[in-house]
Amino acid sequence: MSDTITLRRNHYGHWVPIQTRWMDNDVYGHVNNVTYYSYFDTAANDFLVKVGGLDFRDGQAIAYVVASRCDYKKAIAFPDVLDIGVRVNHLGNSSVEYGMAVFREGDNKAAACGSFTHVFVSRETQRPVPIPAEIRAALEQLVDYAG
Amino acid sequence: MSDTITLRRNHYGHWVPIQTRWMDNDVYGHVNNVTYYSYFDTAANDFLVKVGGLDFRDGQAIAYVVASRCDYKKAIAFPDVLDIGVRVNHLGNSSVEYGMAVFREGDNKAAACGSFTHVFVSRETQRPVPIPAEIRAALEQLVDYAG
Amino acid sequence: MSDTITLRRNHYGHWVPIQTRWMDNDVYGHVNNVTYYSYFDTAANDFLVKVGGLDFRDGQAIAYVVASRCDYKKAIAFPDVLDIGVRVNHLGNSSVEYGMAVFREGDNKAAACGSFTHVFVSRETQRPVPIPAEIRAALEQLVDYAG
Amino acid sequence: MSDTITLRRNHYGHWVPIQTRWMDNDVYGHVNNVTYYSYFDTAANDFLVKVGGLDFRDGQAIAYVVASRCDYKKAIAFPDVLDIGVRVNHLGNSSVEYGMAVFREGDNKAAACGSFTHVFVSRETQRPVPIPAEIRAALEQLVDYAG
Repeated sequence: MSDTITLRRNHYGHWVPIQTRWMDNDVYGHVNNVTYYSYFDTAANDFLVKVGGLDFRDGQAIAYVVASRCDYKKAIAFPDVLDIGVRVNHLGNSSVEYGMAVFREGDNKAAACGSFTHVFVSRETQRPVPIPAEIRAALEQLVDYAG
Repeated sequence: MSDTITLRRNHYGHWVPIQTRWMDNDVYGHVNNVTYYSYFDTAANDFLVKVGGLDFRDGQAIAYVVASRCDYKKAIAFPDVLDIGVRVNHLGNSSVEYGMAVFREGDNKAAACGSFTHVFVSRETQRPVPIPAEIRAALEQLVDYAG
Repeated sequence: MSDTITLRRNHYGHWVPIQTRWMDNDVYGHVNNVTYYSYFDTAANDFLVKVGGLDFRDGQAIAYVVASRCDYKKAIAFPDVLDIGVRVNHLGNSSVEYGMAVFREGDNKAAACGSFTHVFVSRETQRPVPIPAEIRAALEQLVDYAG
Repeated sequence: MSDTITLRRNHYGHWVPIQTRWMDNDVYGHVNNVTYYSYFDTAANDFLVKVGGLDFRDGQAIAYVVASRCDYKKAIAFPDVLDIGVRVNHLGNSSVEYGMAVFREGDNKAAACGSFTHVFVSRETQRPVPIPAEIRAALEQLVDYAG
């Protein structure tokens, strides 16, 4: 998928607002590269908890990250307010690859975009399990955004 | 000052919303003790930048933290949304001690409260300097909250 | 206890090496104030796990932080290597207050010192419980350092 | 390059020890996916500062991250001690792609591997500049590891 597409707001279906924090900025005065992944992580779990009903404290299936990547296009910095966009790039039996993008409030072009892959495992056995039905139904809503 | 007072919303004058992040939660399922200080840090600098006009990239005076403390009263956890309240406990010539409290959205009693002391120094000499006039005027607005 | 004492290495009994990380530095080029608490947190749990036998995954008693504070004396920065010193300031029935200090490798005077209070609670009921015997025996070894 | 290769120690030429921290562990009891990038970030800058002579406070050329990725193979957790291996996958005129891997102390197979791309820019103009000679000479030593 071309950058032109992945960087536009209409290619993401779930939105999570993020307030940058003072310590997100590194010595060069911008949000550190590491911190973007905490935005991705937060956005994916926000979706799983609020829309998919994930119970990360007691649920039988939990989600581990097996791969992630990010392309940084434009610097962002505290005190920027951000919108993190989430979609589903690929929905498998036990795993899901999300597409993610970071937008400054009011910007139409993403400052960064990337992906993030969750594998669902049994909390007890730590072995992969099918994505629970309620979560799968939620994720399916985000598949169409990855045009 | 008694807990009864420090834990009420009307004793804080500047407010900063914070979205918790997935990685704020530690292995026990609650926001880690360390992370509260990133909320304090963010709230103080939000005030300095937006109300006091602090230029943390190029300004001649910058603010270093020389002391901080926090009392944790009630657990908070991702995906809670928080309001951080800020007041000024003590305003000196070069330094300011903020009073801080962390409220869950909708709660009237703080989940945690603490303090945080900034000393203003010259970026060049790294020696203390009087608090710049615009920042001092801003901080004075928060003095009366510490009843 | 005076600063003269709290800042000396011989007043701490358990040592944990910490490698600073690039993102520990903030926009002013030094380790951010928040990050010191992650050193305290790490040092206390390092002691509990390695000396006291704490099982943070499955043990019945777990330790929550109820208070912490830090005084910052001298800046530190990536790529400094640090030694975190731990002692016990006060040992109660369910709680322990640690004294902590941050030393640059080779320095005899601490760059920062503070305290950190754990309350032991039942994982199940979340109510305070007596400190488990093995952990108490370990903590007692650190009491004498707080001269 | 196959996983078989990227996961072996002899394919990395610069080594940085990392002590895990208590808060590196997330709610599932393992080092959070985000934190691996702080290890990469630390390892690359450790090399640039100590071997390449990077002056991140006052130097004219500074390094911004434009892309990163990680594959997570095996869980790690506090209090593990880690070795981060660094090599150079590709050395361009203004940019360098590092190969990175995370090993538990004593393990011969990496727990995670990934890459990380720095572009050197002028601190003043924020435009790309050729990699400074001293840094380039250092990076060249790591090229041969990416067999």
